[in-house]
Amino acid sequence: MRQQPNLVFIGYVEKVEGNAARIKVRSEFCEGLDKLDSFSHIIVLGWFHLKDTPKDRQTIRVVPKKHHGAPEVGVFASRSPSRPNPLGLAVVELLGIEGCTLVVKGLDFVEDTPIVDIKPYLPRADCVVGAKAPEWTAAGPPT
Amino acid sequence: MRQQPNLVFIGYVEKVEGNAARIKVRSEFCEGLDKLDSFSHIIVLGWFHLKDTPKDRQTIRVVPKKHHGAPEVGVFASRSPSRPNPLGLAVVELLGIEGCTLVVKGLDFVEDTPIVDIKPYLPRADCVVGAKAPEWTAAGPPT
Repeated sequence: MRQQPNLVFIGYVEKVEGNAARIKVRSEFCEGLDKLDSFSHIIVLGWFHLKDTPKDRQTIRVVPKKHHGAPEVGVFASRSPSRPNPLGLAVVELLGIEGCTLVVKGLDFVEDTPIVDIKPYLPRADCVVGAKAPEWTAAGPPT
Repeated sequence: MRQQPNLVFIGYVEKVEGNAARIKVRSEFCEGLDKLDSFSHIIVLGWFHLKDTPKDRQTIRVVPKKHHGAPEVGVFASRSPSRPNPLGLAVVELLGIEGCTLVVKGLDFVEDTPIVDIKPYLPRADCVVGAKAPEWTAAGPPT
């Protein structure tokens, strides 16, 4: 029997204004942001708390509704927030750090979304220029 | 008070052989892989179970040891597996799907690592060609 994982919330989405968002990191984790501003982009992992329901978490097939013409697919072939673990992933531009608050551009999480991790975006590891995705992903929003 | 998040393991790293790895997805989540093979690359989120210790999870500053010349940085400016939530993220090539098993290339997780999510890699959302990272990240392995 494996140890039950204990996920902690390191912060939350404080404010969303248009394309920009503010992420407030809890004070005990604030020092972990040191030198993050040497990266232009970061990866934000959140917990879609509004989708943390038994029904949403039993989702195994979805029709990506924001993508016109998308077929029904397995949930792991989609970025649906309704999934077994409501983990969200967003690659965002880091506009600035103000104390324990990150100002980012392009975050598609709603206000109050708990944050579970922040990672630097490493083009060498994270950017696959020629990656192939089916045509339906090209319609609608990026995710 | 927020609801305590309950993270479930949807599978685990079954086997690592050189640059290839096999990820076994638990049978109850297997249908979630449908049509994932229409993507060339996927994002794998794992739980670094070997780093799920109080000491590792209290890590707030690190010297990225695989990267020669790296300065001490905040843990969120690194991809260190020792971090408040031992979540790992890897962008990997999907070589094939055999039943409930994914065969992937480029996964830097050890065998038995629990998997918590699988997402399709969407170049529109996930690939930032011109992202800037400090010079130390260019030395050593990609992450």
